[in-house]
Parts: sequence; C-alpha cells; structure tokens
Amino acid sequence: MRQIGLQEIEDIARGAAILGSGGGGDPYIGKLIAISAVKECGPVTLLSPDEVPDDWLCVPIAMMGAPTVLAEKANGGTEYKALYDVVSTACGRRLQAFMPLEAGGVNSMLPIAACARLGLPMIDADGMGRAFPELQMVTFTIGGITATPMGLADEKGNTLLFHKTVSNKWTEDIARAATMVCGGSVSICLYPMLGSDVKQWSIRDIVTYSEQLGRQVRLVKDAVSGSPEENFLRFTQGHRLFQGKITDVLRETRGAFNFGRVLLEGIGRDKGHVASVTFQNENYLAEVDGRILATTPDLICLVDTETFTAVPTDAVKYGKRVLVVGLPCEPLWRTPEGLKLVGPRYFGLDTEYIPLEDRVCTN
Amino acid sequence: MRQIGLQEIEDIARGAAILGSGGGGDPYIGKLIAISAVKECGPVTLLSPDEVPDDWLCVPIAMMGAPTVLAEKANGGTEYKALYDVVSTACGRRLQAFMPLEAGGVNSMLPIAACARLGLPMIDADGMGRAFPELQMVTFTIGGITATPMGLADEKGNTLLFHKTVSNKWTEDIARAATMVCGGSVSICLYPMLGSDVKQWSIRDIVTYSEQLGRQVRLVKDAVSGSPEENFLRFTQGHRLFQGKITDVLRETRGAFNFGRVLLEGIGRDKGHVASVTFQNENYLAEVDGRILATTPDLICLVDTETFTAVPTDAVKYGKRVLVVGLPCEPLWRTPEGLKLVGPRYFGLDTEYIPLEDRVCTN
Repeated sequence: MRQIGLQEIEDIARGAAILGSGGGGDPYIGKLIAISAVKECGPVTLLSPDEVPDDWLCVPIAMMGAPTVLAEKANGGTEYKALYDVVSTACGRRLQAFMPLEAGGVNSMLPIAACARLGLPMIDADGMGRAFPELQMVTFTIGGITATPMGLADEKGNTLLFHKTVSNKWTEDIARAATMVCGGSVSICLYPMLGSDVKQWSIRDIVTYSEQLGRQVRLVKDAVSGSPEENFLRFTQGHRLFQGKITDVLRETRGAFNFGRVLLEGIGRDKGHVASVTFQNENYLAEVDGRILATTPDLICLVDTETFTAVPTDAVKYGKRVLVVGLPCEPLWRTPEGLKLVGPRYFGLDTEYIPLEDRVCTN
Repeated sequence: MRQIGLQEIEDIARGAAILGSGGGGDPYIGKLIAISAVKECGPVTLLSPDEVPDDWLCVPIAMMGAPTVLAEKANGGTEYKALYDVVSTACGRRLQAFMPLEAGGVNSMLPIAACARLGLPMIDADGMGRAFPELQMVTFTIGGITATPMGLADEKGNTLLFHKTVSNKWTEDIARAATMVCGGSVSICLYPMLGSDVKQWSIRDIVTYSEQLGRQVRLVKDAVSGSPEENFLRFTQGHRLFQGKITDVLRETRGAFNFGRVLLEGIGRDKGHVASVTFQNENYLAEVDGRILATTPDLICLVDTETFTAVPTDAVKYGKRVLVVGLPCEPLWRTPEGLKLVGPRYFGLDTEYIPLEDRVCTN
C-alpha cells in the first residue's frame, strides 16, 4: 500500500504511454486530468492485488474512443460518480476499488482521477499490460469474466448500463456504436469482479511498472555508462526495430477508432531503408523494407529519438524523428486463447504470430 | 375493462396498420406474434386510462428499427421479460401495465404479446395516435416525461438500460446506433410513467379505435349504401388524395430507418396524373402533380383499392394499386410544441405545416 501523488503521476503517465503502444490517449491530457483531481482531493492509495480482500468488488475504469478525440474532448468530471452509481446499483453493492483497464497516457491516469474524486483505493493491476483497441481484449475475457454489468457515461450527462450482453465482443460492438453517437469518446466502467478474480486474472503491478519505466525515461541521460538509447533498450527489455524520420501519416477515423499507417525513412544506421507502422488506435504491425519485424500482441512503440518519450498514434506527424521499439507482451497473450483475442489474424494480417524475439533474430 | 382475444387481435392489427401511416411494421407478422402469445397464455385485459390507478407504474413497449428488418427478424420472445426486469429494477418497483408506444402493424401487437406472456394488463392508449419514426416523437415528450429509464433488448440476449439521457432525442440517437449494431431491430420499453401521467398525456382509446377501424375495413363491402370507397372515407374521416398504380419504389435502409419514395401513376378518375409519397419508415409527404396535398403530422396512408387494407412502406411494390388517403392527426400534434417534434421542417421539408383539410380544399 502506498500513495500516488504528483511526482508518481508524472512518471506513471510517461511510462504507461510507452506501454500504450501508440494508444491509450495523450499522456499530457491524462496528466492534467489526474493532477487536478489529486490537487483538489488528495493522493490516491495504491493497493497491490495481494492487499485486496478476496470479496471486494473491484472495477476497471477507462475512456473509450478514438485517441484523437480523447485528446480534444477529454471528460467532464461528472462521469466517475455516474459510473460508480450505475454499476454499484447493478451489482447490488458498492464498488470498493477502481483499477485501470489498460496502460496508456489517458487510461492510466483516469483511474487515479476517479479514485481521488470518489475517495476509493486503486489496484496496481490492469487487464492488458499495454493498450489494445477493443473492450474484449483483456485477460479477464480469457478468465471467463463478463464485461457486464457495464456503465457508459459521457460528459453531457448520458448514462447507460449494459445489463447483459451475449459476449464481451458484443459489449464492444454496442458500446462502440454508442461512443460514436456520443461524440467519439466516453467513459466506461466494466468487468466488475471480486478481489479473488483480480488476483487470478489481472496483469499485476502494471502501475508500479509504468512508474519505474517513466522514471527511467526521465533519467535516461543521467546514466553513468552506455548511450541513452542503449540504456532505454536495456531497461525496457526492448528490441530496436528502426530509427527514422516520419515521411507520411495516413490516418482515418472510423468507427470511433483511429486507423492508419506511419511511413518512415531511415536515419543514422538505418539510412537507406524504409519502414512502416500500422495501427488501429494501437500499433499492431511494424515492417522494415517490407519485412515484418513485429506484430500484435507484442508492443510496438514509437519514442522520440532525443527524449525517449512515447509518440502516440494521435501525435505522429511529418518530420518527427522516432525510434521504433518492440517489447515482448505478457506471456498470457502468447497462448492460443490470447492470440485468438489479439493475435495478428484478428487484425486482418495474413501471418501467424511469431514472437518478436524470433522475428528480430532471423532478420 | 375488457378482454382482447383472437378476433380483437385481427381487427386491431388491421386498423392500427392504417393508423401506422406506412410504418409500425407488418400487420401479418404482428398478428402472428400476438396470436401465438394469446393462444398460449390466454386473453389480455384492456384497461381504459380512467380505470388505471394514478400511482400505477405503466410503460410503453415497442419494437425499434427499420420495418423491412422487423418483418424478417421479428423478436425472440425472451425480450419482454428482460425489459420488464431491467426497467422494474431501474424504477425500484414492479411495472404494473404495458401500453403501445405507437399504432402500427407490429407495434400495436407487441404489447398484447408482452401482456399475455407476463400476465399484465394493457392500457388503451399510446403516445402517438399513429406511428412516427423516432422515439422522442411522442406526446409524453410534450408532457416533459423522460424516455429513461429505458430498456433495450435484442433476440440474441443483449440487454441495455438507458439510465439517463440528456434529452429524449439523445435517447433516440443512442438507441438507434445500438439497434443498428444489434441487427436493425430490437425491443424497447421506455417512458415509464404513473397512471396519472397516462391520463394526462397519452392518446386515449387508441386500441379501441384501431379495432373499430379494423372491423369497418373488414366489413366495408357489406355496407347497405354507398361504394366501399365512400364508406371507407366516411368512417376513417379520411380525405381521398389519389388513386394510382405504383410505378416505382425508391428505397434505402440507412440508420435503422427505411427511407424512400413511392411513385404512382393515376388510375380511374386520377388517370393522367402522377403522385409520390415520401417516407422515413412512415409516410410524411404526399404530392400530386408536384403539389403538396398532405404532410406530417397528418396521416398519409396507402390502402389496397379492393380490400382497403393498409399497404405499409415495407410492402409497397411495383404494380400494386392503392388509394392514398389523408387522415387528420391528433390536435396535440398541430400545436407549436407538436410541430417542433414532428412537423414538416423536422423531416427536412421546406414548407410550413398546413392542415390536411386546408390543403385538400384549396386544390
């Protein structure tokens, strides 16, 4: 058990934005949301899953929608209470803790703001260990936990309860349609579960890991030995895929998703080569000279070549110099059940999943 | 208080299909739904609004979606209970009666089926006195009654509760998006209200009026004096707008609505003239030789020239001979509040509302 205050927020946002793999929203907007809540209401208590009683009612909270919209629309601040009320009523008891649904610039910060404003503890765990674009793409789905009863609220005052859905994918489909009508982004509260489920099915310690990552990025230039890039790759356990200048960004907002592709021209030792990174909110494919170097569910992250801060899909733009890095995903995503939910074929790629480490070695 | 059995169902379906003004779904499908429920569970008690205690919780129930989809998809029969449960829970008490939301082939029948299967009485009232395409287009909106808490259920098992929305139009927009995702038609239960609200804001005796209309249509050829057409126009208080053969049907299903236009070539005394009827689920504009003869909110109905049964928008087809009839709408729809909700400008027509009687007289 420890407190999340302003310095922690800075580091968590910076680290989680990298784990966001291009998605999860703008870390700057996310920080503003969390900082103003903590300044007004005080720091948030972070509990390790092991500190959560088995019978507690715990619920992930997040924003849903296209990251480009999140960045402009954010949320209104009244959604937390609306979601708390509607999900508590549906569960027949009061929620006892929030947790993140995914890692990312906004979605790591929103639970902090919600906990600060409602006086609830936050659990150091999420359902992805990174960000993914769709609601059913969580370890909880593998564990048989249903997304419903789920709350959905927008900043205008519309509040829906998803009482029951045929599957977690149906929840995604219906909620996505509602999100579009509500202006492209909403706040959601879903997968209500017991503390015992959190212990069994969540990705543990993701907040703490995000914070460590963020601190290391902040201090990357202070290391006594090695280049900043070497240090960055060491502490992220990342694989260097490409270094380049962005030459084009193809972007389409459709179905409350950002779809697109970033085209890169090599710089430094990658001069003379080209690369592309394809995304649906999150990056799911990295190719260099037309050869696949990494696919979902491994993390594909673009970071600034100087500061090593994440460059999310909503911030990529012409001329930006980035390092493309691959990070191995959580082992659960590499199982058949995991790959069914988030493997390359789900995203329409005609390739089997090959772990990042193997793809990089054979190149 | 009286019982609705099989003969009543036949007549209500036939009459309500005319009041449906082209919408409200296929009367044949509607009848099947109601008949099978009454055969299995027994007749339904119909209460006049005056017989409903002021403190009863009463709720309209309907299907939402494109009529062409309703006709093929119908409902699964499990939705009534799902809606009853979710709305009762949200209201904190048990629903005591269902009522129709609108008149129409399916939407006059669905409440009968729901009441039969759940053992509830039905109230002889609705919120339109006809059919309209959107959820906020009810007299209840004029009375300040909110659509929420509203239940939405599909035949697959998805159940949503609209806890709170910014306005009844927002309920329409979000529910329409959910309807599209759920396959183009769903069952809904909305505008929960007290018996006292029913008395003040509903269109009274609509079921009984539908039944009388249906009986008269059934017996139209048995009248001792006058032609069947004269008799039909007399008892519907209808204005004969055109008699013609359908020469083309332009149709588009978009946003879980059927949009389109029916083109007609005159027959009988209208030979040499042309007409068109434009619809969004329901007919909202009738023109003869390019001149407007009737607009929403007055009822524009196509009926078979031989049997005088309604020809809804999902059944119009090339070669069909129809009589186009205009019926004056409920007086409340002609007030400024009513016209704001359902007047010609809402449907994109660049014309003021002029009552049917006046338009017909000046022609």
